[in-house]
Amino acid sequence: MQIPSQYLEAAVDQIASLPGIGRRSALRLALDLLKRSELEIQDFVTAIAALQDKVLRCTNCGNLSDVPVCHVCSNPKRDTSLICIVEDIRDVMAIEATASYQGTYHVLGGLIAPMDGVGPQDLLIPRLLERLETQEVKELILALSPTMEGDTTNYYLFKKLKPYDVLITRISRGIAVGSELQYADELTLGRSLQQRQVFDLSE
Amino acid sequence: MQIPSQYLEAAVDQIASLPGIGRRSALRLALDLLKRSELEIQDFVTAIAALQDKVLRCTNCGNLSDVPVCHVCSNPKRDTSLICIVEDIRDVMAIEATASYQGTYHVLGGLIAPMDGVGPQDLLIPRLLERLETQEVKELILALSPTMEGDTTNYYLFKKLKPYDVLITRISRGIAVGSELQYADELTLGRSLQQRQVFDLSE
Repeated sequence: MQIPSQYLEAAVDQIASLPGIGRRSALRLALDLLKRSELEIQDFVTAIAALQDKVLRCTNCGNLSDVPVCHVCSNPKRDTSLICIVEDIRDVMAIEATASYQGTYHVLGGLIAPMDGVGPQDLLIPRLLERLETQEVKELILALSPTMEGDTTNYYLFKKLKPYDVLITRISRGIAVGSELQYADELTLGRSLQQRQVFDLSE
Repeated sequence: MQIPSQYLEAAVDQIASLPGIGRRSALRLALDLLKRSELEIQDFVTAIAALQDKVLRCTNCGNLSDVPVCHVCSNPKRDTSLICIVEDIRDVMAIEATASYQGTYHVLGGLIAPMDGVGPQDLLIPRLLERLETQEVKELILALSPTMEGDTTNYYLFKKLKPYDVLITRISRGIAVGSELQYADELTLGRSLQQRQVFDLSE
């Protein structure tokens, strides 16, 4: 379809460059923006532009933050001997939302994915090794997604981290709480049988 | 979920204000923008800001345009005695894509929807009446969606336009080309029987 304004078309092109937004959706969003007042557009544009200048990555763990050291790393109540390794800040947010973890994080910023051209050098691994050398770390928890990329990254990290005197664990995999057994995929169900745990009434 | 940066949160809020984008999608989009270079963000922001200043509405028909009179109204090959009344510029784009219409348009900018607080005064109706008074118009085609709002607007326009010496038609409704009869809804199938047309080999 031919867009009757080159400026509208440019905006649609930009919006359609976002992941998961097609041209038709982008046009709908651009037309919504077009209806807004000058002030509203200015607020929108300012908020997007601020991402570049104002949002920092924590110098310790790679989490996003408005200050050089994030609110987890700077919290004296957190257990700094425990580091949970995650792909992305969304994983930090998801784990924080469980309110059941009191350690710190290390945000890799991706997973090893040779097909997408992402190698270990693209991830925040040197800083993780630095933390192991300079901070007193007892346990590293690998909390990556149980996908091929996650498993590849787990394997790479395990080999890289083995020389250090630190316990390496990974989050448990199995049937999701609240889901029905008969709908679980075969691999998950098979693994959850193999990795069965002693029944414990306190859970 | 708690977003660890107020600037990121502000961007997420703005993106989530777009129609059909939830907070989780908005976060995904904001994180994608966060990964971009300064130049890329600048291009994005400039394109959005330009919507406000650069995209005009055609002074004749309400279509979007970069110049005061849109490319349809300023095209001497178009039949100005024929006006197709549509809700939105996306309808203009859809009809133009059929390459089977050589008249002009009138873009209302919405449909009468009392439930959403949209009344006739919010639509580009005065300009339509002005066109009927000052231009030589033979036929008005109502090409609004066959929804409750579309039908309400058709009815309102029909009453408003009747005093003028002009043929008022509406686009045909019926079974979509290529679709299977058994899956058509009852109302559409019923109407397409009532409004049956003489069979014509030339179609």
